[in-house]
Amino acid sequence: MKAIASLVVAAAAVTLAAPASAQFAKPEDAIKYRQSALFVMGQHFSRLGAMANGRVPFDAKAAADNAEVVADMSKLPWAGFAPGTDKAAPTKAKPEVWAEQAKFKDYNEKLVAETTKLAAAAKTGNLDNLKVAFSATAGACKTCHDAFRSQ
Amino acid sequence: MKAIASLVVAAAAVTLAAPASAQFAKPEDAIKYRQSALFVMGQHFSRLGAMANGRVPFDAKAAADNAEVVADMSKLPWAGFAPGTDKAAPTKAKPEVWAEQAKFKDYNEKLVAETTKLAAAAKTGNLDNLKVAFSATAGACKTCHDAFRSQ
Repeated sequence: MKAIASLVVAAAAVTLAAPASAQFAKPEDAIKYRQSALFVMGQHFSRLGAMANGRVPFDAKAAADNAEVVADMSKLPWAGFAPGTDKAAPTKAKPEVWAEQAKFKDYNEKLVAETTKLAAAAKTGNLDNLKVAFSATAGACKTCHDAFRSQ
Repeated sequence: MKAIASLVVAAAAVTLAAPASAQFAKPEDAIKYRQSALFVMGQHFSRLGAMANGRVPFDAKAAADNAEVVADMSKLPWAGFAPGTDKAAPTKAKPEVWAEQAKFKDYNEKLVAETTKLAAAAKTGNLDNLKVAFSATAGACKTCHDAFRSQ
């Protein structure tokens, strides 16, 4: 019951949050959430990179599994960049994330589109397809990082 | 190219890791990975709890979306509990995780099974179904936490 009780408390906290970040109990949670989702995505993406770059042998099943996780994860981080979550905890997110929301959203959507293609490419079981899609996805990461993430 | 170059470095690091934790460049990454995956899962699960416990209005679409993320995420954390990742960074994981691997794996699989049912229940659009599945999933969380997570 303790676990359930703590979830009830967490749920209550959600209802007390400001509307704009209603999904998170507090700004720190939003920051931790987006960083966590990006880290998990990055781990799986780097495994695809290892195959695309010939550092580890190509494993079609592993590639398909990792690409599917990347595609799923790519949808998540953006909700964590809610208004008021720009400095509640250490973050590399630049003020431009909130100042240029249309552009940020566009880049987020481009990444999701690329990871969808990445998952499809990985499922073909063809390493050359994976290489092309990996490179395009890495480009979408970099475009957004260059504009919105401090070094 | 910088982003791609850094991915190549990350990929190279993966090949240098010990076989048992070959998926991670270093033990700290495995710990961060599992904690990140569990945190993301917990955030989405708590939103279902808010609905199941009547703290926020039931929203069938949101419930289905959140439950799907929970089901996807529930498969991930366990790879992060690789051998040698018991104390490379602050962790609440008890030594029992590595001493009682069959039991730990069994609990992991039970959670995955419950979250699969949770996603199916959420898709019915029926709040009572969600409540039952939420409670069963929370029970699977608690069973594992009681045995394998320090307070």
